[in-house]
Amino acid sequence: MPRELVSHRDGHVYEFAPEMEPVYEAADGESLTIETIDSLNGAIQTDDDLLDAIPEEVNAATGPIAVEGASPGDVLAVEIEAVRVTEDVGRVLTAPGFGLLQDDPEIEHPATRVTEVDAEGTGSEGGAGESGGGGASGGSVEFEGIDVPIDPVIGTIGVATAEESVSTLTPDDHGGNLDTTDMTAGTTAYFPVFQEGAMLAMGDSKAAMADGEMCGTGAEIGTEIDVTVSVVEDPAVGLDRPLVDTGDAVKTVASAGTLEEAVELANRDVVRLLAHDHGFSRTEAYLFSSLVGGLEISQVVDPQVTARNAIPSEYLAVPF
Amino acid sequence: MPRELVSHRDGHVYEFAPEMEPVYEAADGESLTIETIDSLNGAIQTDDDLLDAIPEEVNAATGPIAVEGASPGDVLAVEIEAVRVTEDVGRVLTAPGFGLLQDDPEIEHPATRVTEVDAEGTGSEGGAGESGGGGASGGSVEFEGIDVPIDPVIGTIGVATAEESVSTLTPDDHGGNLDTTDMTAGTTAYFPVFQEGAMLAMGDSKAAMADGEMCGTGAEIGTEIDVTVSVVEDPAVGLDRPLVDTGDAVKTVASAGTLEEAVELANRDVVRLLAHDHGFSRTEAYLFSSLVGGLEISQVVDPQVTARNAIPSEYLAVPF
Repeated sequence: MPRELVSHRDGHVYEFAPEMEPVYEAADGESLTIETIDSLNGAIQTDDDLLDAIPEEVNAATGPIAVEGASPGDVLAVEIEAVRVTEDVGRVLTAPGFGLLQDDPEIEHPATRVTEVDAEGTGSEGGAGESGGGGASGGSVEFEGIDVPIDPVIGTIGVATAEESVSTLTPDDHGGNLDTTDMTAGTTAYFPVFQEGAMLAMGDSKAAMADGEMCGTGAEIGTEIDVTVSVVEDPAVGLDRPLVDTGDAVKTVASAGTLEEAVELANRDVVRLLAHDHGFSRTEAYLFSSLVGGLEISQVVDPQVTARNAIPSEYLAVPF
Repeated sequence: MPRELVSHRDGHVYEFAPEMEPVYEAADGESLTIETIDSLNGAIQTDDDLLDAIPEEVNAATGPIAVEGASPGDVLAVEIEAVRVTEDVGRVLTAPGFGLLQDDPEIEHPATRVTEVDAEGTGSEGGAGESGGGGASGGSVEFEGIDVPIDPVIGTIGVATAEESVSTLTPDDHGGNLDTTDMTAGTTAYFPVFQEGAMLAMGDSKAAMADGEMCGTGAEIGTEIDVTVSVVEDPAVGLDRPLVDTGDAVKTVASAGTLEEAVELANRDVVRLLAHDHGFSRTEAYLFSSLVGGLEISQVVDPQVTARNAIPSEYLAVPF
C-alpha cells in the first residue's frame, strides 16, 4: 500500500487544542508521509529578509491526523522513519526579544543568514538531504563557507491538549514546540493521548540545530517526514509527557517555565520508568539515575524551555 | 623521569582561595600522578552508613600544586591522561536537603547504596579500573545487580580564586566542584590563572556519574590521576572560566546560580571562541552556535549549577 501524503496544503494548525478537526484519519499502524513548510512560511528567502518580531502564526504544524482507536489514557507511538529536506535553502536568524543572548548589544537583532543546501553526496532528488537510521546520510548546509551536515530535526510535534489551547510556539505535556534534536529519523516518539484520535500534527523542521537552539532557530526548512503511527492501549505505565526512544537511549522530555523545573520533571519521569522496569524502589531508581546517561537540554528560547533525561537503552526498556 | 606522586596524604584543601600554600611545585610541562580520597573521606563503607547532612569538610582536593611560571592572565592546561579507581567500592547516596528530588516524599533521605567494583576485564591491579583515551577500558561497578561500566569523573578540579575563598562544594570561574563528566582521561582541561603558580587541586572522583548528578553524588571513589600540567602564557584569547577539549569537542564550562544564567555564560564564551577562530562577527558566531553541538548539563545539585556549550572539534580549535 503506497503511503498517503498529508501536506501542509491539506491543513495545518498554529495551536494544539483539546478540540481539533482532523485533515486525515489514519488507521492504527498506518505509514504516512507528512509534508511540512518551514517555520516562517517561506517569508525568509535571502539575508536581507529580516524578522522584526516573531509572527503570530509561526511553526505551522501539518495536520492534525486522527489515529483510529486512540483514546484518552492511551499512548501514541510515532516511528520516524525518514526526514527529507525539500528546499535548497535553510535559514538561521535572530529576532528582537527572542533568543538566549537577546540582550547582547554586540549581536544584531534582527539578523538572517540563509544556509544553502549542498546536495552532494545525497541520493535524493532536487537538492534534498535525507536522514535515515538516526543520523545524517549525506548533504550539508553552508554557513559562511562552513559545511554543516544535514541532520534534520522536527521542531514542533504533538497531539491535542488535555484542556488549554497552546500555540505552536510553546512546548508542553502534549509536545508542541519541543525543538528536540532527537526528534529525527530512527527515533520512535511517544505521546500521551488526551483526546479521541490523538490528533497528531508536526512541522517547524530544521536542516540542523544545536541542543539549546540558542539564537531561537536552527536552519529552518521544509521537509517530508515518513512516519508510522500506532496506538498503545492501556499502557503498562501511563505517560504524562513525551518520551523518545532513539535506539541508543530512552529519554523523557519535559517542558516548563524554567530549566530547573523541566529537569526535575524529566528526572521524576525517568525515576518512574526505572522503578517499573527494574522493580526498584523510588529511592533506588533515583540513585541509579545519577549513575548513567543524564540530563540534556532541548531548547532554552521558547515560552517554555525543554529538557530531557536520557538513560542508555541497555538500562531502560520502553514499557510498551 | 618517573612521575612524582602527590597524594591527599601530602596535603588537601576544602576551599579554593586567593592565597594557597602549595604542597608541591611542578615544572611547566611536568607529568604527575595525583592520588585522591573519596568525597566523603571514607566515612561511607556500607549501605548502613547514612549521611544525615553534607559534612562541612567535603570533596577533599589533593594539592594545591604550584606550576612554575603560571601568572595571572595565563591559562593552565591540564592534560588528563588516566584516571584509575583505587578502591573496591564506590558509594551513591542521598542526604537530607540535597539533590534534585530532595522534596520527594517517596525518596528516602538519607539513603546509601555501596557499589562494588568488579575488576573483571581490567588490566589493573587490586580491583581498580582505568579510563584511558576518553572512555572506560574495563571494569564495572554494580548497583543492585546491574553492572555499570567504570567511566571515571574528576568531580572537583580547579585553581586558586581571584578574590573570594570558595568551598570545594561549590563550582565557579576557578573550577572547583564542576561535577562534569568530561573531566576524565583523554580530556585537556584549561583554567584561567588568577594567582602566581595557578595552584591546581583536585579530588571528589566518581567511578560513574550521570550528567546532572541528580541525587547529589555519582559512585564516589578514590582515584589515581595521571596529568601533565603546562602554562599558556599570554593566550590569544583570555579565559574567564574553565574550558575542556575532549578530543571530540571543545566545551565551555560555566557555573552560576541558575541553569539559565549558566547556559548564557557558556554560550557567551563559545560565541567569543567561534568569532576568534573563524573571523566571525559576534552575530555570525551566535547564529553558528545554534547549528552545531549545543548546550549540556554538568550538575544541578551543588550551591551553584554547571552547564556547558559543546562545539564539535571540526568547527572549533582551542586557541592555545
